[in-house]
Amino acid sequence: MSPPASALVGIDWGTTNRRAWLLAPDGTCAAEAADDQGVLAARGRFEASLADLLLHLPGVPADAPVVMSGMIGSAMGWQEVPYIEAGQPLESLAQALVPVPAPTLGRPAAIVPGVRWRGDGRVDVMRGEETQLLGAVALGVRDGWFVLPGTHSKWAEVRDGRLVAFQTFMTGELYALLSTQGTLAAASRDPVASPAAFEAGVAAARDGALSTTLFGCRAKVVTGEMPAAHAASYLSGLLMGAEWHDRRRTWGDRPPAQVHAIGSRALAEGHAAAAALMRVKLDILDPREVHLAALRHLAPRVRQALS
Amino acid sequence: MSPPASALVGIDWGTTNRRAWLLAPDGTCAAEAADDQGVLAARGRFEASLADLLLHLPGVPADAPVVMSGMIGSAMGWQEVPYIEAGQPLESLAQALVPVPAPTLGRPAAIVPGVRWRGDGRVDVMRGEETQLLGAVALGVRDGWFVLPGTHSKWAEVRDGRLVAFQTFMTGELYALLSTQGTLAAASRDPVASPAAFEAGVAAARDGALSTTLFGCRAKVVTGEMPAAHAASYLSGLLMGAEWHDRRRTWGDRPPAQVHAIGSRALAEGHAAAAALMRVKLDILDPREVHLAALRHLAPRVRQALS
Repeated sequence: MSPPASALVGIDWGTTNRRAWLLAPDGTCAAEAADDQGVLAARGRFEASLADLLLHLPGVPADAPVVMSGMIGSAMGWQEVPYIEAGQPLESLAQALVPVPAPTLGRPAAIVPGVRWRGDGRVDVMRGEETQLLGAVALGVRDGWFVLPGTHSKWAEVRDGRLVAFQTFMTGELYALLSTQGTLAAASRDPVASPAAFEAGVAAARDGALSTTLFGCRAKVVTGEMPAAHAASYLSGLLMGAEWHDRRRTWGDRPPAQVHAIGSRALAEGHAAAAALMRVKLDILDPREVHLAALRHLAPRVRQALS
Repeated sequence: MSPPASALVGIDWGTTNRRAWLLAPDGTCAAEAADDQGVLAARGRFEASLADLLLHLPGVPADAPVVMSGMIGSAMGWQEVPYIEAGQPLESLAQALVPVPAPTLGRPAAIVPGVRWRGDGRVDVMRGEETQLLGAVALGVRDGWFVLPGTHSKWAEVRDGRLVAFQTFMTGELYALLSTQGTLAAASRDPVASPAAFEAGVAAARDGALSTTLFGCRAKVVTGEMPAAHAASYLSGLLMGAEWHDRRRTWGDRPPAQVHAIGSRALAEGHAAAAALMRVKLDILDPREVHLAALRHLAPRVRQALS
């Protein structure tokens, strides 16, 4: 029998932003808040910064524990929490929570550990996405491929509720750099979203290393094959296509019928277009719902884990 | 019978720098100069800027023609010169020179056109490298694969003196961006050149899209698998390896025994290491010698082409 549920505060504390939810004992979301006090901004004053955030969650019980995930557990965060190894059941994250001393806070606080994956001589890491994936498992999606788009887009394979492998793609970061600086930014002018240019970029990403397909964006503009206004859409397609073609190589002749995306509609939109081109169904899970499901799973287990 | 040779000034006029050589009628280099008055700096005053440069070539005959190659022929250069199509003999560049009106200069001036390549739905362009490749052909290297490392590294295939295909890789630009900004720059600290880390990067570049192998650089540092001091060498290896693995896919099971690099020892060094890992011989051609060979080929043909 599970212990009785209690209220819980969950925080997705990233590098530049953070979001908080108050989960009521009945499993509903009683309050939520978001601000720009990410790890970089809150550095050196995490405990006070957390107290500030709690003030924005009306009705938060004085003793409700706080569970934090994301870069808050990194070397630049509140406390560096060692990675756990991939391969374990995501539902065992509850037992792996790491308490954080927060004497002025008057309530227990803990960090969800990130995950490290090793394979084929490679290594990859995540902090935060493991909690999203736990939520997906808690919602019943215990098997399949997941994409979590963002600055560092993650592709994860989950089997029987275990996170067995994942890869990170620097898609969002590369887009931000290349669309604002250097040759490709110079090739872009008065950008207009072009689904056709995006699709052309996704297709072109198949034809070689990213460092050469990227130059194709400039070559298409200077030769007049593509208007400068479409360069940004083409660049976005190249970067997203690089993810999907890489995954296709992994899948070989057994591609999945569907991929689960955890991300806002806006972030998942490009993936939906790429998935359609690859004839894969994209099942979009709302990141808020997924995080709340993770908190519902954690709520009855937190006190035991921290005691 | 070739017309008699005459003195010629050759200028490799790039985006940020330019180099000039005075070729004497006997084919030797009588003077040379270099400065930072690239296309960006000289914009709007190209004719005066060229006159300044000529003052730094002692003994330049008053009527010696000037042949310019590089970004000087681009839309941001002195005069936009249309690309010629790949597939033609490089030695026909002499007939494709485009005169530039320079009334105050008192001597003929011309620009070598860049080259456009199309194939497999792709397009690529070069400006300046065609003159280097002409020089290699003039030196007798009429067949083979060439790499011209730089901000935008070019790989070219030359058959019987014809430039049949080429690809550009944004290797230098990506290195400059990623080693100074963002996640990978943050992962690097007190860089120390590490041949072993470079080699590991070259090898890792085989295993997926560049956007994911790049993140591996950070993952290796945060998991303690690689010291932060080696991150820059690993990044360099990843980018150079992406070029070589891409070429290997093109070559399939018939890789060339050797590749010709046109670049300074410093620039070609990384390629030499990558080539050794791929068991390909790298033949390094000095870019100055190659450019002078191109000028020797052009010298007896320039006046006729411009008349």
